[in-house]
Amino acid sequence: MLRLHDKPQETTMTPFPHTSRRRLLSGGATALAALGLGRAQAQTASAPTPAAAAPARSLPPYVDWKDAEQMIVHTGTTIETRRSAFGTSIITPAERLYIRNNLPAPEVGIVADPDAWAMAVEGVQQPRYLTVRELKALGIETVATVLQCSGNGRGYFAGKPSGTKWTVGAAGCVLWSGVPVRNVVAALGGLAGGARFMTGTGGEKLPEGLDPRSVMVERSVPLKAMQDALLAWEMNGEPLHHAHGGPLRLVVPGYSGVNNIKYIKRLAFTAAESDAAIQKTGYRMSPPGTKGDPSHPSVWEMDVKSWINGPAPETGPLRAGWVQVHGVAMGGTRPLRRVDVSIDGGQTWREARLVGPDLGRFAWRQFVLPVQLPPGQHVLASRAQDTQFNWQVETSPENAGGYLNSGWRSHALPITVA
Amino acid sequence: MLRLHDKPQETTMTPFPHTSRRRLLSGGATALAALGLGRAQAQTASAPTPAAAAPARSLPPYVDWKDAEQMIVHTGTTIETRRSAFGTSIITPAERLYIRNNLPAPEVGIVADPDAWAMAVEGVQQPRYLTVRELKALGIETVATVLQCSGNGRGYFAGKPSGTKWTVGAAGCVLWSGVPVRNVVAALGGLAGGARFMTGTGGEKLPEGLDPRSVMVERSVPLKAMQDALLAWEMNGEPLHHAHGGPLRLVVPGYSGVNNIKYIKRLAFTAAESDAAIQKTGYRMSPPGTKGDPSHPSVWEMDVKSWINGPAPETGPLRAGWVQVHGVAMGGTRPLRRVDVSIDGGQTWREARLVGPDLGRFAWRQFVLPVQLPPGQHVLASRAQDTQFNWQVETSPENAGGYLNSGWRSHALPITVA
Repeated sequence: MLRLHDKPQETTMTPFPHTSRRRLLSGGATALAALGLGRAQAQTASAPTPAAAAPARSLPPYVDWKDAEQMIVHTGTTIETRRSAFGTSIITPAERLYIRNNLPAPEVGIVADPDAWAMAVEGVQQPRYLTVRELKALGIETVATVLQCSGNGRGYFAGKPSGTKWTVGAAGCVLWSGVPVRNVVAALGGLAGGARFMTGTGGEKLPEGLDPRSVMVERSVPLKAMQDALLAWEMNGEPLHHAHGGPLRLVVPGYSGVNNIKYIKRLAFTAAESDAAIQKTGYRMSPPGTKGDPSHPSVWEMDVKSWINGPAPETGPLRAGWVQVHGVAMGGTRPLRRVDVSIDGGQTWREARLVGPDLGRFAWRQFVLPVQLPPGQHVLASRAQDTQFNWQVETSPENAGGYLNSGWRSHALPITVA
Repeated sequence: MLRLHDKPQETTMTPFPHTSRRRLLSGGATALAALGLGRAQAQTASAPTPAAAAPARSLPPYVDWKDAEQMIVHTGTTIETRRSAFGTSIITPAERLYIRNNLPAPEVGIVADPDAWAMAVEGVQQPRYLTVRELKALGIETVATVLQCSGNGRGYFAGKPSGTKWTVGAAGCVLWSGVPVRNVVAALGGLAGGARFMTGTGGEKLPEGLDPRSVMVERSVPLKAMQDALLAWEMNGEPLHHAHGGPLRLVVPGYSGVNNIKYIKRLAFTAAESDAAIQKTGYRMSPPGTKGDPSHPSVWEMDVKSWINGPAPETGPLRAGWVQVHGVAMGGTRPLRRVDVSIDGGQTWREARLVGPDLGRFAWRQFVLPVQLPPGQHVLASRAQDTQFNWQVETSPENAGGYLNSGWRSHALPITVA
């Protein structure tokens, strides 16, 4: 027999457009090419990007299928996920995944027949072109990775580095499917010898009248990264979308976003790093206010990092009582060991529970801690530890580009409970 | 230096609508309510459904955001995923997940404020209504499950049972997030005693003029299923879509689709099974041509099962040479141990490799076997084994409803290689 306690009001049956999360926004004919170029130049010159200061209000047409309400549109080529939009089921769906492009994308027609896309493989015994169709015969692997923009968290640096003021949402956790790079190398007779780097070149259309090396997207990573790398044609169970690098993307698990080359057209095993500006001077950990050069560490492997996603102030007023504090935590290149949560800005900590399936060392994990929140101001924070007992740092060092901010203190979330 | 072998033709840069996979089809004003009712009546009466014989060509408006090209529309309420559309990255995105409704859905307005949705919990020490907002304070768990229609594979039964002729695509693997049912029970003081079943009631709008018990969606499962069950508000990283049971769905891992109650409005721990027709006479494993009754086993736990998804003839002509034969395999309620693949219709078998992260015993896993296919006719088959050494059956027993077909022989995939 049902005793009716707290019978709620009838749910309001207001009409609601059922396609809202997919709704097509017509808006914002952003000058995509101009913005893309502007960003790339700013990146290599470490100059501020005026566009980032005046966020667009709607999604640009090439990603108008994304969930507009869950995204923050900084510019036409820099779009982040809201902190409250990550949910708690680990994977970030394409509709909510961030966008960050260094150059305008190649023509969308390249995904009409994805299997026909061809890339060159060099620095192997038998260099040649391979189509996606040929790659698909060489093997299939599936890996979950955190895809995170090198500048994610830049907005939390005190020193105002140049570039988009990302908070936590230039990141997502996705499943990739493709062929292991090591299979491709083996099929082409192995490495040619002398290689120290794996260098990927993107298929972006380069603007006329500029030195290609100054704008092209070409990144080198240490050769060891080959062991885990994929040439991926699928993300989250669907053919890789053009906006995320389809038909083919180089996925380098554990390495920041820029190293995961979209529309890859050339993969080379090289003795030296690329001399493209994006490698030589861009994405370098140079001291604030200085220009990057090859003496500064390149932005490669990601660090152990975590942040709180909920309860999120942006989803409405918070009420006193029990809440499930939750967030995501990653080990960078190593498995995650534990996550601690604080509700007093880091004065005291309690270990959270890791929730849901473990998708592997390159994925993030959800963590949850139930806490009773009294009315007032609170500061929610989290700090993660990898299996080598490395703790997430309290404060990341400032650098000119605002890269790799993983400091737990600046990522803490102030909330007000009524 | 690059030697150019097999330099492919330039990729054709034909214009291609970049939103094609999300494109909104205007089509097919299917008589949704009528179809929904028609199906439910057919189900309980074991009568053939004429609608299934005349598939619609376009997605009905309530799921017009799905990827039309990847779906087979049987009727407005029975829509399956194409075999070639599963991809190899484990998760089935919402855009490709099947639809099967027993009744027309409640008004879509119920997802406008999902936290306000309320359900009754009965058969506990302190029965009461709980809103989704209240449930969210009781705990968070994330689990990956195979969601599979009880009738998936019905089209492969030789005896022509009634109902939609599903092939392999009335199934998907998704990540759910919600509160464990056991947490809810604990918060309400524990079970009231005497319970042998967990009974969930859906919030569908019942048609006027019919005995509610004859049409309502109310299913009982053995009490032990409570241990793994969730009340889920999120799927694949997004709030649960109305078309898949949002704002709140009962997820019973390891149990076939119908037991996973959409828009759940009542969860009761009961001494007896529901007397609703869908439980009492529907979804029973009765001999071909007979009407189900409580003496026949209910359609509950799923069996160990697998099938090949690629190479798929529907994606174009297949060429001789090496291919990666791949598919999905599930243990039902137990972890998967191994999968064997045959390319000669089951005369000889080889063990395939399980690929990608293991999302837990209720998820499916991808398997891959590289094989060299000569020109000619081949029959690709797979058979899975769980950790208790139960092999997937060669042939499932025929039954009136065409339920739980997991026979590997009928699921085999004939292909022609040029």
